[in-house]
Amino acid sequence: MAGNRVVTFQGPMKMEVKTIDYPKLQDPHGRKIEHGAILKLVTTNICGSDQHIYHGRFQAPKGMVMGHENTGEVIEVGRDVELIKAGDLVSVPFNVSCGRCRNCKERHTDVCENAYVNDIVHCGAYGFNLGGWQGGQADYMLVPYADWNLLKFPDKDQAMAKILDLTLLSDILPTGYHGCIEAGVRTGSTVYIAGAGPVGRCAAASARLLGASCIQIEGILGQREVDAGVDCVGLEAHGYGEEDREEHSEAILNVLFDVVRAGGAMGVPGIYTNLDPGAPKSNMAKKGELPLALSKAWIKSPKLIAGQAPVMHYNRDLMMAILWDRMPYLREVVNTEVIALENAPAAYKTFSDGSPKKFVIDPHGSVKKAA
Amino acid sequence: MAGNRVVTFQGPMKMEVKTIDYPKLQDPHGRKIEHGAILKLVTTNICGSDQHIYHGRFQAPKGMVMGHENTGEVIEVGRDVELIKAGDLVSVPFNVSCGRCRNCKERHTDVCENAYVNDIVHCGAYGFNLGGWQGGQADYMLVPYADWNLLKFPDKDQAMAKILDLTLLSDILPTGYHGCIEAGVRTGSTVYIAGAGPVGRCAAASARLLGASCIQIEGILGQREVDAGVDCVGLEAHGYGEEDREEHSEAILNVLFDVVRAGGAMGVPGIYTNLDPGAPKSNMAKKGELPLALSKAWIKSPKLIAGQAPVMHYNRDLMMAILWDRMPYLREVVNTEVIALENAPAAYKTFSDGSPKKFVIDPHGSVKKAA
Amino acid sequence: MAGNRVVTFQGPMKMEVKTIDYPKLQDPHGRKIEHGAILKLVTTNICGSDQHIYHGRFQAPKGMVMGHENTGEVIEVGRDVELIKAGDLVSVPFNVSCGRCRNCKERHTDVCENAYVNDIVHCGAYGFNLGGWQGGQADYMLVPYADWNLLKFPDKDQAMAKILDLTLLSDILPTGYHGCIEAGVRTGSTVYIAGAGPVGRCAAASARLLGASCIQIEGILGQREVDAGVDCVGLEAHGYGEEDREEHSEAILNVLFDVVRAGGAMGVPGIYTNLDPGAPKSNMAKKGELPLALSKAWIKSPKLIAGQAPVMHYNRDLMMAILWDRMPYLREVVNTEVIALENAPAAYKTFSDGSPKKFVIDPHGSVKKAA
Amino acid sequence: MAGNRVVTFQGPMKMEVKTIDYPKLQDPHGRKIEHGAILKLVTTNICGSDQHIYHGRFQAPKGMVMGHENTGEVIEVGRDVELIKAGDLVSVPFNVSCGRCRNCKERHTDVCENAYVNDIVHCGAYGFNLGGWQGGQADYMLVPYADWNLLKFPDKDQAMAKILDLTLLSDILPTGYHGCIEAGVRTGSTVYIAGAGPVGRCAAASARLLGASCIQIEGILGQREVDAGVDCVGLEAHGYGEEDREEHSEAILNVLFDVVRAGGAMGVPGIYTNLDPGAPKSNMAKKGELPLALSKAWIKSPKLIAGQAPVMHYNRDLMMAILWDRMPYLREVVNTEVIALENAPAAYKTFSDGSPKKFVIDPHGSVKKAA
Repeated sequence: MAGNRVVTFQGPMKMEVKTIDYPKLQDPHGRKIEHGAILKLVTTNICGSDQHIYHGRFQAPKGMVMGHENTGEVIEVGRDVELIKAGDLVSVPFNVSCGRCRNCKERHTDVCENAYVNDIVHCGAYGFNLGGWQGGQADYMLVPYADWNLLKFPDKDQAMAKILDLTLLSDILPTGYHGCIEAGVRTGSTVYIAGAGPVGRCAAASARLLGASCIQIEGILGQREVDAGVDCVGLEAHGYGEEDREEHSEAILNVLFDVVRAGGAMGVPGIYTNLDPGAPKSNMAKKGELPLALSKAWIKSPKLIAGQAPVMHYNRDLMMAILWDRMPYLREVVNTEVIALENAPAAYKTFSDGSPKKFVIDPHGSVKKAA
Repeated sequence: MAGNRVVTFQGPMKMEVKTIDYPKLQDPHGRKIEHGAILKLVTTNICGSDQHIYHGRFQAPKGMVMGHENTGEVIEVGRDVELIKAGDLVSVPFNVSCGRCRNCKERHTDVCENAYVNDIVHCGAYGFNLGGWQGGQADYMLVPYADWNLLKFPDKDQAMAKILDLTLLSDILPTGYHGCIEAGVRTGSTVYIAGAGPVGRCAAASARLLGASCIQIEGILGQREVDAGVDCVGLEAHGYGEEDREEHSEAILNVLFDVVRAGGAMGVPGIYTNLDPGAPKSNMAKKGELPLALSKAWIKSPKLIAGQAPVMHYNRDLMMAILWDRMPYLREVVNTEVIALENAPAAYKTFSDGSPKKFVIDPHGSVKKAA
Repeated sequence: MAGNRVVTFQGPMKMEVKTIDYPKLQDPHGRKIEHGAILKLVTTNICGSDQHIYHGRFQAPKGMVMGHENTGEVIEVGRDVELIKAGDLVSVPFNVSCGRCRNCKERHTDVCENAYVNDIVHCGAYGFNLGGWQGGQADYMLVPYADWNLLKFPDKDQAMAKILDLTLLSDILPTGYHGCIEAGVRTGSTVYIAGAGPVGRCAAASARLLGASCIQIEGILGQREVDAGVDCVGLEAHGYGEEDREEHSEAILNVLFDVVRAGGAMGVPGIYTNLDPGAPKSNMAKKGELPLALSKAWIKSPKLIAGQAPVMHYNRDLMMAILWDRMPYLREVVNTEVIALENAPAAYKTFSDGSPKKFVIDPHGSVKKAA
Repeated sequence: MAGNRVVTFQGPMKMEVKTIDYPKLQDPHGRKIEHGAILKLVTTNICGSDQHIYHGRFQAPKGMVMGHENTGEVIEVGRDVELIKAGDLVSVPFNVSCGRCRNCKERHTDVCENAYVNDIVHCGAYGFNLGGWQGGQADYMLVPYADWNLLKFPDKDQAMAKILDLTLLSDILPTGYHGCIEAGVRTGSTVYIAGAGPVGRCAAASARLLGASCIQIEGILGQREVDAGVDCVGLEAHGYGEEDREEHSEAILNVLFDVVRAGGAMGVPGIYTNLDPGAPKSNMAKKGELPLALSKAWIKSPKLIAGQAPVMHYNRDLMMAILWDRMPYLREVVNTEVIALENAPAAYKTFSDGSPKKFVIDPHGSVKKAA
């Protein structure tokens, strides 16, 4: 087997393509895992949260392989894998989950108990500093618990024809959709979506799919309240200057407390964390606290649900919607651009400089070939 | 008709019994309301939130009649009332709701749109500075939208035999139960309830009724996380000294963010507000903000639901549970003491001084007679 | 006030336009109802269930005014009506519900307890033999409990521009949508809809709005099972000959038991009844029984929810979807034709003869004027 | 390793204890399964559905090992098992489910797609003719997908002290609870439970745990309707004579259609099937049909949910309720009797003869030892 080209983090603002070994069916501790599968990547996207690593805001070890938005073809499976076969084309939820713990059994794959790294972090993810799982911005990658984690596309040719939509199933489409669901978006809802990046745009596409009536992405809100508010920004949106942050990292949440009507709800898929080495060193920030207008909003009976999307909860449904042409507007809304693996480091910079593109890495030229 | 003795607010720490006119079938603006009913009070309890008025922490006009935990016998109904009849024994939800607006139709009687006083407050309540509805610590009171608001007890004799349990249906039992429901309490749940006052004790009784396994009221928590956390304290729990408040009003919520497990949920029936004239004058407090550990908790996918209980959502179910002896422990847990109307001012003081009793006013001696 | 032209039932296959008195604010027993409103009809549709009366399959008194799919302008309101004003343009749910009984408080307006006619029937409806409420195929009609029952369109001009979509909110659009909701239709669902009449077509439009992927209306099903099945036919679909009925009235339900997958669900808004004077006189039919394949389907864990739609549960959401252009396909799918009141009897015959049109009566020429 | 004594089916009315080989980590097709575990049985109960096999009403191969209500100690695990360890004391849901298919991911372990035997049956179970998995009325048994399927008791001594309650977690307690949940039982509900056998008694215990007010098991119902109806009988309840069956196998369901109120719901955990070789040979029975009063009940908006319980959905919650003493009435209600493995054939006969006991086999004398 040939080598495995991978996009690696070499320090803040420094991504490099390296060649490493072809992955083995073993966990980050070196133990054999018969429940795993090796994938040949078909698409692997650069995400906004990859940018946090790029900017040094999420700590990551030097040399870490990036990439948690992965779609690929199965090359090899362990002996315990029964449903997934070599040759299958599959989407990989960014959450690494085990399918065996209490939370997985209750469909909370976002907080899999079996991927705990320590007392603070409650989940695993590929290409993050969460559990040590190698990312998929690569030629090949390992996926553990393959039967549980992988979503198989029913027809490979049909899937390749829509691969630029389906590539969004690994993270940002379910993430935006989850934000809408948690905010109670349904037929006729009025929705305010904070954040005009790829996740915010996927949330807008999801709200439309769910039958929402009026969808406002960012922009200036008038007096009118909305039924549902979705925070697709998180704390990192407001500048990287300390003074700025100190004052504004809570801004989106407080807008939502303000504009969501009494009886409405708020979904918060945007990332908040107290583990940001670049964050200001105020007492509140150190404790992972934000000044939130809950006292003021209490009389409106606010409902707030935050956290990562349990991708598996949604990806099959959304796959069906894509395959049956229910989201024809998706690709345009998300604004994807396909690039070669070698160009990934440059794309990190372009994205960081403010490009509205969603970059999709095509390591083996499969997308080009299919088009 | 004889006069109407009422407990009135005359200023902080000063409650007085006065005699006013017998109520009319008219709203606080003096308009005739054929949908209303006049009640002869059977029981009317003193609530922890009445204490906020007593302490001057919730602004109220001088002379306001107190009391939002009311149970009574119907004396007279307007021409539009069809289901409720004179002679019925009924429980009055503390929320004044109209049964006609969007929120009432969606079962959110806690945020009835038709009882808006202004842009800030979204509900009406008896004996509060919310909509101008007279309280029920009185001989007689008016209830608007009687068919919608009143819960009729099926049998008067049966009800009088359990009146000290049923008197809790107007507020604190549904409030504690609502906190549990919003926190996801179900069979086998482990629950942490913050607050050992009457609402906290009703939450504990509710958690037990719902089949929760381990229920901790206050006390010291070990390392173990819980499935559900219920805040029955609110911001007023931590002393009335300014320094104290400044530092601690967010304390309960941050304990819940800490102890509720990933995948769990938090119910917050405890009252928070930015309209507290006695609150410290910090910038955060003025804006109705609290330093909340959401950044730290985000990775646990927290779910938080706050606000008043929509009493009507629960009171019939809980009435059935009481009438069929499913909560034999309720009275003991709540620790009620029946008093005469004349003794209400003294009871306010006793409660304020730290008594663990729940005082139930018996204006017409009906409870004594039935016992 | 001028007279009130109405479409009346004069016996099987015999509808006639008559002129009767302008309606009064009083219930069918002649009692004054201050909670009512008088409407000038803007649109009033002929429904498939009207055809049952026309065919003599649902018993109705001679002279009964037809029409339960009503939209109109408020002319006059009773003293107890607070939110609805003269001049409002409103949609009238076909269910007559009180907004005060246990079922209405729990959002089950389809089974309002206060509109019970007798032990057998559990609801009221306009222009049916259910509670004695006059229908709306008329110039004017009465609506009781107006604040509760009426849905106000926010802007009259905007509403008149979409009146042929909005006219469906009184019955068939919420009915089709309800069938989908009860069948669990959501993003990506595969759905089988039995019945290609107006309700079936509204169910298909609803399934699309809800994000369903594959929607099959009638047609031949292949081997593939579906996630959701919706019965928009009911028992009357299979011929009017006795032999035919005897054998086939259960046919649709048994198709659903067959094609809905294990873990899926069935919604049954199509009407079944044991009160059909034209039905065959078998022992099973007399008892209101059907030979249903539940024994065979049990191993698939079937879920079946039947009955009328609680229109109020859905009409606001669907109104928003229409007003914000989320269902541009609706009018074409439903295939409406506007007719004058005088032509209603002829339209009953045309519909009975098999026309695929949905007839909308425009008593005052308001639709023509707006167009 | 010693031999493995097992209770086997040798033909109708004929159970025999045999000794077979110690189980291997392989599936019924002889393939190695590293995801499996071998259990030493601690308790294994005789179930009402075992009686169907005993009576020849469910076809079973001669020599089949009986038993799907199993609790045991883990002796050995496959290489893929990560969370369950040798020495753990565990409960085994009667459903054999894979934890990898669409239905398992959606928590429908009752209709696991990966345990399909053929087009008709949609689930696997131990000791049934469903997938070929050996039963647990034995010294030792195999459990596949051990991490997914097994519920570990947190403390062995604590568990052994309550083993006669915990032994019900494998089937009948979750089955009765599931019936209640599907029937909408909640605080204050009035519930009718058809069937006074062990499942019906577990349903009654569950309704009580859920806070239901009035619970009627069988008995004569008055005029009053109930909120919830649970069918714990199924089709086999009404005699084994053909004439009897023909007329009465639908009787329970039609009672529920009758007594459940408009807006209420029905749960049907009682077993219905069209695969009963002993059933009468009417046309309806052959097609798996029953004469059900849906036409009559339609106007009440009935809701019916049938099928096996997804035990995993409930067993952890119920375990917690038992361990924390929330169901002190359980053992008495169920009326268990512990027997030796050798006495199992006799117990089948006693049960068949009408004993109200629930027989719990104690193959290794572990229960006796612990008591």
